[in-house]
Amino acid sequence: MKRGLFIGRFQPPHLGHLYAIKSALSKSDELIIVVGSAQYSHTFENPFTAGERIEMLRLALIEEGIDLSKIFLIPVPDIGEHSIWVSKVKSFCPSFDVVYTNNSLVRRLFEEEGFPVESTGLYRRDLEMGTAIRERMLRGEPWENLVPKSVAEYIKRIKGVERLREICRKTD
Amino acid sequence: MKRGLFIGRFQPPHLGHLYAIKSALSKSDELIIVVGSAQYSHTFENPFTAGERIEMLRLALIEEGIDLSKIFLIPVPDIGEHSIWVSKVKSFCPSFDVVYTNNSLVRRLFEEEGFPVESTGLYRRDLEMGTAIRERMLRGEPWENLVPKSVAEYIKRIKGVERLREICRKTD
Amino acid sequence: MKRGLFIGRFQPPHLGHLYAIKSALSKSDELIIVVGSAQYSHTFENPFTAGERIEMLRLALIEEGIDLSKIFLIPVPDIGEHSIWVSKVKSFCPSFDVVYTNNSLVRRLFEEEGFPVESTGLYRRDLEMGTAIRERMLRGEPWENLVPKSVAEYIKRIKGVERLREICRKTD
Amino acid sequence: MKRGLFIGRFQPPHLGHLYAIKSALSKSDELIIVVGSAQYSHTFENPFTAGERIEMLRLALIEEGIDLSKIFLIPVPDIGEHSIWVSKVKSFCPSFDVVYTNNSLVRRLFEEEGFPVESTGLYRRDLEMGTAIRERMLRGEPWENLVPKSVAEYIKRIKGVERLREICRKTD
Amino acid sequence: MKRGLFIGRFQPPHLGHLYAIKSALSKSDELIIVVGSAQYSHTFENPFTAGERIEMLRLALIEEGIDLSKIFLIPVPDIGEHSIWVSKVKSFCPSFDVVYTNNSLVRRLFEEEGFPVESTGLYRRDLEMGTAIRERMLRGEPWENLVPKSVAEYIKRIKGVERLREICRKTD
Amino acid sequence: MKRGLFIGRFQPPHLGHLYAIKSALSKSDELIIVVGSAQYSHTFENPFTAGERIEMLRLALIEEGIDLSKIFLIPVPDIGEHSIWVSKVKSFCPSFDVVYTNNSLVRRLFEEEGFPVESTGLYRRDLEMGTAIRERMLRGEPWENLVPKSVAEYIKRIKGVERLREICRKTD
Repeated sequence: MKRGLFIGRFQPPHLGHLYAIKSALSKSDELIIVVGSAQYSHTFENPFTAGERIEMLRLALIEEGIDLSKIFLIPVPDIGEHSIWVSKVKSFCPSFDVVYTNNSLVRRLFEEEGFPVESTGLYRRDLEMGTAIRERMLRGEPWENLVPKSVAEYIKRIKGVERLREICRKTD
Repeated sequence: MKRGLFIGRFQPPHLGHLYAIKSALSKSDELIIVVGSAQYSHTFENPFTAGERIEMLRLALIEEGIDLSKIFLIPVPDIGEHSIWVSKVKSFCPSFDVVYTNNSLVRRLFEEEGFPVESTGLYRRDLEMGTAIRERMLRGEPWENLVPKSVAEYIKRIKGVERLREICRKTD
Repeated sequence: MKRGLFIGRFQPPHLGHLYAIKSALSKSDELIIVVGSAQYSHTFENPFTAGERIEMLRLALIEEGIDLSKIFLIPVPDIGEHSIWVSKVKSFCPSFDVVYTNNSLVRRLFEEEGFPVESTGLYRRDLEMGTAIRERMLRGEPWENLVPKSVAEYIKRIKGVERLREICRKTD
Repeated sequence: MKRGLFIGRFQPPHLGHLYAIKSALSKSDELIIVVGSAQYSHTFENPFTAGERIEMLRLALIEEGIDLSKIFLIPVPDIGEHSIWVSKVKSFCPSFDVVYTNNSLVRRLFEEEGFPVESTGLYRRDLEMGTAIRERMLRGEPWENLVPKSVAEYIKRIKGVERLREICRKTD
Repeated sequence: MKRGLFIGRFQPPHLGHLYAIKSALSKSDELIIVVGSAQYSHTFENPFTAGERIEMLRLALIEEGIDLSKIFLIPVPDIGEHSIWVSKVKSFCPSFDVVYTNNSLVRRLFEEEGFPVESTGLYRRDLEMGTAIRERMLRGEPWENLVPKSVAEYIKRIKGVERLREICRKTD
Repeated sequence: MKRGLFIGRFQPPHLGHLYAIKSALSKSDELIIVVGSAQYSHTFENPFTAGERIEMLRLALIEEGIDLSKIFLIPVPDIGEHSIWVSKVKSFCPSFDVVYTNNSLVRRLFEEEGFPVESTGLYRRDLEMGTAIRERMLRGEPWENLVPKSVAEYIKRIKGVERLREICRKTD
């Protein structure tokens, strides 16, 4: 039994995340998906709450036909101190054997604590895909094709694009 | 579709919790199980980490034959300020329609924020069952019959009773 | 122009507080009333929110005929570190010349930072009057005669005694 | 009896704030003025402490002939988590019926918690007036005409412009 | 080159601590002395600030003839979360090879993170010697013979016993 | 006996720091060196942990032939609130008589609390030398001549340049 860990902010969950999750699941029996920066919401970087992101991830996993019983969805708050963040993740999560990430800071931090880290491969060139999606939302450009269908529907149901625009409108 | 929320510290998950969870599931379609005081561990009140408690809960749910796809297991840290704790729970969890609890402070806090709260009924007289279990562990008395079989096995595998005794040994 | 500072938790504001406030006002032109432990509520020690305590204090000051334009009502959160608490108070409050207190820890902390500290004299034997009031509320004994009339009415209006009893009911 | 809530950082209080406060007072009987980001000071964004801002606001209200007995001046610290900030404001403030703001993020957060939110109208084009004032202070340009006379005098008395320049001087 | 780590709260540094430090130094080349609970002061449990404790430790080491160039004195704040505390210690301290402690919780936490832990042996029966000293101070009983001479002198110079009594005087 | 205090982030300790430390030691008998922003690491601004910075400082002091028994090396965490930061420093450090700094914000904050502050003089034009060193590391340019030899060796031994590059690689 091998259990992996995959970390993201999922603002929102997109096709690059799904690609990485499936890649990780192909290499391990169970997968912990950490929803990072869990306490943040209502900003450009983090428009959605941890609860909304967990709900979107679950919809996306179901849409993708992934067996939920192999998945843990765990929100982990940021603590702003990189040197103790891996300990925080370990404390909030069931034990795991390997970390999957394409982020070099995450890789570095887990490697310094002795964890094996593997890359998940990239979905097209999906670095910064989350940022690109939020910028498209702001500019009124199409973004729906970059996320699972169920995620796009959820965002529309909770009027997520409107929220993003309102919280980014410059005032004060 | 009705989604409920059930909150506990699960130190460790015991038969009273399972009774309440099954009661809650009989009245709603999906259930969010909040693992409270998530940041604490290695004390008498909270010997196990949030990750260990999530792992034990999952084992117990599987043992009980509960469909995991209807369950969210969410760790939520304490913030020490009761007046904003409900907001914190709302932020970490997917949306929910009703709260199940037998704890009068939890009931009070959610009712003040406008949530419907229902009691789950008591398993025998299970108030303080968690405390009773930890005290039995300390004194070397039998405790295994108060928790699901898979939970007892897990605690033995991670040497949880030894941990509890060491962290409670008075030294300074 | 001399401005004093008086600190309490005001759980709830009682006749001893009013006595001390009037004593302080007789010795200075303006008075800052700090509502301490501002972030806490819904516990036996701190049943009321900072906002509720400010509202009760204002009612009591008006009942007492005290000129509100001479008063600052300032909530200050606890930070759990005594050595920097005086700095926190200074940061949240307009400048002040003297501290009025009967509490020997508060006296000590302000004196170590170089502030003059004066005693306000005691209303009968009012040490622990706040604790006594809350215990009477719990036991169903009369408490109304220990607080200003407007405070008693406010507590009844928000069902404060019921809240205190619910949050203190032992359940785990 | 209708009580409103108005939120600002007041770095420093300026004519746009006064315009909004008078507008809010014309529509409600009492007004809570929340001094936000209360814990910050000695930066370009927040040069003044909460205590100094409260003192300036009080001077401005008196200068304007506003009845202080209708006003609550409440410092509220930032907590960096938008989803629980409204709860924090509710906890620190007496109860209120309506929120007055021109800031779209504040509007959004209070509306999501079910509060009615009204705009206060704009004083000329007062968005960013606080920033403009601080930039003028740094560059040695006139700023006094953008704040109440008593506020300008207070800032000069505490040598606020000198502070702003020192804390913004690039060194390290 | 072997570097050890020894942790205490040093409220105040006493003969038991010195015994342990010398024992640890006899087994390693350099020693990191962590002053724990660094942010606390002015309570019965933690009357002295971290800075005062560091000053007392230095006096005691000099009195004892210990070479200061082999010693690191490092204050480390408590974070209230046992599962990440070892990471916090690692982050604040130079690297170390072994932990010396007689405290079973400290032993447990470092062992779970893979550090070798050794006992220092007990000076007479010095468990709780810190508590005993503070209680003697409160009751006006002799305590000076339980601490190094230079520590007793320092405590008298800063009027530490008077502080302890004032902060423990019950007033509310 | 005159004791000075010198504050830096020491990311990493460089020749400008050493120049200032020697200047400060020429004017006082003992020197407290505060390692600021102690909780941060693994970012461009703060790549090294407090423990690593303390270790590098100690190597540099030894290399420079400075008597370690006159030096205190104290990590102090940032609290993000300038108005109480001086209190935090006072709490973590032994008492001191004078502050040495070239930073105008540090100067301002200590002067507001009544401390004498002196400049240390500048080593060539060493403002921002820390930033310059880190930028050179990133770009693969020579940086070793800007730090003490022992510091350069230490950074190479722990592969500090590799760390800096990995944590700064842009990935999302």
